[in-house]
Amino acid sequence: MAAFLRNCWYMAAWSDEVGDALFRRRIIGEPILLYRKTDGEVAALTDRCSHRFAPLSMGELQGDCVRCPYHGLVFDNAGTCIASPFSESPPKGAAIRAWPVEERHGAVWLWAGEASAADPSQIPDFSALARPCGPPLAGMMPMNAGYEFGTDNLMDLSHIEFVHKGSFAGAGVIFAGRHRVRQDGETLHSDWWMPDVAAPAHTLGVYPPEMRCDHWLDMRWNAPAAMLLEVGATPTGAPRDQGCIVWQAHILTPENETTTHYFWATTRAADHVDPQGDAFLRGLMQQAFEGEDKPIIEAAFANLDGGDFWSQRPVALGIDAGGTRARRMIEAMLRRERQPQPA
Amino acid sequence: MAAFLRNCWYMAAWSDEVGDALFRRRIIGEPILLYRKTDGEVAALTDRCSHRFAPLSMGELQGDCVRCPYHGLVFDNAGTCIASPFSESPPKGAAIRAWPVEERHGAVWLWAGEASAADPSQIPDFSALARPCGPPLAGMMPMNAGYEFGTDNLMDLSHIEFVHKGSFAGAGVIFAGRHRVRQDGETLHSDWWMPDVAAPAHTLGVYPPEMRCDHWLDMRWNAPAAMLLEVGATPTGAPRDQGCIVWQAHILTPENETTTHYFWATTRAADHVDPQGDAFLRGLMQQAFEGEDKPIIEAAFANLDGGDFWSQRPVALGIDAGGTRARRMIEAMLRRERQPQPA
Amino acid sequence: MAAFLRNCWYMAAWSDEVGDALFRRRIIGEPILLYRKTDGEVAALTDRCSHRFAPLSMGELQGDCVRCPYHGLVFDNAGTCIASPFSESPPKGAAIRAWPVEERHGAVWLWAGEASAADPSQIPDFSALARPCGPPLAGMMPMNAGYEFGTDNLMDLSHIEFVHKGSFAGAGVIFAGRHRVRQDGETLHSDWWMPDVAAPAHTLGVYPPEMRCDHWLDMRWNAPAAMLLEVGATPTGAPRDQGCIVWQAHILTPENETTTHYFWATTRAADHVDPQGDAFLRGLMQQAFEGEDKPIIEAAFANLDGGDFWSQRPVALGIDAGGTRARRMIEAMLRRERQPQPA
Repeated sequence: MAAFLRNCWYMAAWSDEVGDALFRRRIIGEPILLYRKTDGEVAALTDRCSHRFAPLSMGELQGDCVRCPYHGLVFDNAGTCIASPFSESPPKGAAIRAWPVEERHGAVWLWAGEASAADPSQIPDFSALARPCGPPLAGMMPMNAGYEFGTDNLMDLSHIEFVHKGSFAGAGVIFAGRHRVRQDGETLHSDWWMPDVAAPAHTLGVYPPEMRCDHWLDMRWNAPAAMLLEVGATPTGAPRDQGCIVWQAHILTPENETTTHYFWATTRAADHVDPQGDAFLRGLMQQAFEGEDKPIIEAAFANLDGGDFWSQRPVALGIDAGGTRARRMIEAMLRRERQPQPA
Repeated sequence: MAAFLRNCWYMAAWSDEVGDALFRRRIIGEPILLYRKTDGEVAALTDRCSHRFAPLSMGELQGDCVRCPYHGLVFDNAGTCIASPFSESPPKGAAIRAWPVEERHGAVWLWAGEASAADPSQIPDFSALARPCGPPLAGMMPMNAGYEFGTDNLMDLSHIEFVHKGSFAGAGVIFAGRHRVRQDGETLHSDWWMPDVAAPAHTLGVYPPEMRCDHWLDMRWNAPAAMLLEVGATPTGAPRDQGCIVWQAHILTPENETTTHYFWATTRAADHVDPQGDAFLRGLMQQAFEGEDKPIIEAAFANLDGGDFWSQRPVALGIDAGGTRARRMIEAMLRRERQPQPA
Repeated sequence: MAAFLRNCWYMAAWSDEVGDALFRRRIIGEPILLYRKTDGEVAALTDRCSHRFAPLSMGELQGDCVRCPYHGLVFDNAGTCIASPFSESPPKGAAIRAWPVEERHGAVWLWAGEASAADPSQIPDFSALARPCGPPLAGMMPMNAGYEFGTDNLMDLSHIEFVHKGSFAGAGVIFAGRHRVRQDGETLHSDWWMPDVAAPAHTLGVYPPEMRCDHWLDMRWNAPAAMLLEVGATPTGAPRDQGCIVWQAHILTPENETTTHYFWATTRAADHVDPQGDAFLRGLMQQAFEGEDKPIIEAAFANLDGGDFWSQRPVALGIDAGGTRARRMIEAMLRRERQPQPA
């Protein structure tokens, strides 16, 4: 059974998933209740009453507080029990866990470690998703696989040539390029550079189809599995900052050891929203993620029958260095978390 | 994994569930075959042939005996193998377990311990269900939860105020009353007394709606989870025995560690059967049990992910003393069962 | 958890199940890919890429080789990785397991032990299935039971009298006969001989219904569970080789510990193919296997709740000697496989 990192931020939801209703989601095996306070900020509590364990998400939101559906205990957004129908003062020792949450660029992040150690500056930067034309196209795909199998997929985009024949693949473009994995502190980069190739698909409607381009796919990873992909192209030889760029988020949050919330988002190549273009883009993403990635990732995960990844001695091809490095970094972080802390 | 009490009577079925056909039901994890002998009495055998383990319930009833569907061994209602197609005399050592059963007031009870220790006088008294107008309205609700989570629910009726808003709840009536848990030998009582309140719902058609009443809810518990609820009301100040009373059975029998047979029954407030009233009453019960209790009990149970109840350190509110006491009494009984018996 | 024999041949498929497409089947818990090479021979590989564990069966057949659907490694039918998109020469240590396979009389057999020890002469002889009029009627029935519960069923055909009342059973015919189990090397025989009985069902259209017959049912077993049944009849007193005979295959291959591939086939009593007769015969087989055997075998298996067969101390009736002997022979073979081999 996998252990999960505790001292890190997990993406818990897209902002628009947390509205007026109480919202429950399992994260790293924990039942989590998300809701908005009257000031609009998101609160997160363990979704299990301390009395008889009913999910608070089946109860009622009352101002900034939640009332248990079973016997009516009331908890505030710090997890403190502030009222009981059965006594003047609330019961002692009834507090439930409140989880630090931060909302950034359309995503809700949850800190899984000690609350006092929560440092929002460690939340990976997804400001690239915020464009003048508005929020990105986004979704959440449930995936029946351990989250690291998704990281392997994303940190090695060579799979595009085989898995994404029906969507992203340009014939042999990936193989025409150069791949480089580098580590910058606790951030990993897995970057492709494909000079002087046919205009890639994301430039459709921006560049003429016959244009030759320099093309790049730069994937940035932060633990546990928050990835930002920069998909770029310029006229061959032009500087990158003049290019046509879209940014994609691929953020994987474990629901438990065997299932994963796969949050995805993409900006648009154009700087305005075009409903027809959005519909096409959403269809393309769903084809690529649900129709192509998900079946392969799930089948590979299932093919281990619950066995450990490394004990199956996977062959290394070099191209997979990004996913492998990510796994090793997480293992090192887990070891650090388990070490006794200096007093 | 929970252990189950052995030296006690479990309700196995409503009488009318055991008719002409062989009837199989899992009880405390054991496959049990129930059937009626030619004299109308119910017999109970382990529903597993001693030869190749086929369920006898797939076989044939022949007089007071059952013939195995697979190779034709015949067992009598004592579990003795009395005939084999393959030998003049039946094989040695082929007996299967027969379980003492008793039928009382429309319910079939099964003794789970040593047959010699079965004492029908220990069967909890549900004679209150037998009314001059005939048998009560009754049903069986499968519940995906350990049976003790049902006991918690029933021994603390304060949940009515929150869970049963769509059925039983009168606004704040429970909170207007006094709650008392008391133990009488191995019987527990969890009683509510609500003096001078609006006429409660069960008096509809008997008392005028504007009448003020003294109202009580007296729950009686016997191990493992056989509960009788007396729902009563009198004109304020009048003696109880002149009141309008209905009796409900809430009898929980473990199917296994995680699923429960929830047998319920209710008498009528009036002393005659009225089909329209019965239809309303049945609808109300189903709304309350299937639509309201079951989702909360199952969600609370599932919220422990198979974890132990006490190790989650549930907060005590006082009002829950009945369920807690019941759990503690069962634990003490289990310890006694495990002690070596004096020679 | 059951262990499976390794040093034996398992039937993997009927020949016509392995056509132009990549075909995946779990056998003794192992994911197996079956496909045909350009020369028509069947190849078998572990259906799990050595790189990131994707099922090769989701990939592409390229000549005699298979390309992984995920990152494009190419494996030949010996399991050798012969090409990678990411390097001039294929990666070291990337070979996957190839399984020896042999095709015989319409069935594909797979050797589960060391490839060097595969001896096709040990494949049980099912040449009886090949008749001048063509291939037998055949099918595969998935069964939710350990395979040995199927062996018990087949090696003790007395169950026909009880289980097959709707299909094969002639009233009391089995009981009119003599049953004998004998061992010949590693082959078991469980034979019935029923002299001078009414013409059995399989002679319909060949013998007049009023004819008296000598009738036999000779079951031959080889480990792990490959059985050939000879169903025969002659006019009473005539020699067997002048009889009306059909042969049935009953070959059980474990998918895993709790599910089994039940391959069945039957020849025809007549020496020509009659579509109407075939339709009737197929319907009869499905009634007998799917409608009658499967529910009983699955229910008996489920009735042990995963418990061990012997630890439930099954009663022996004598008639069950065939299945019992088969279980004991497999246990002895497993012990031999586990012994250290002489150098």
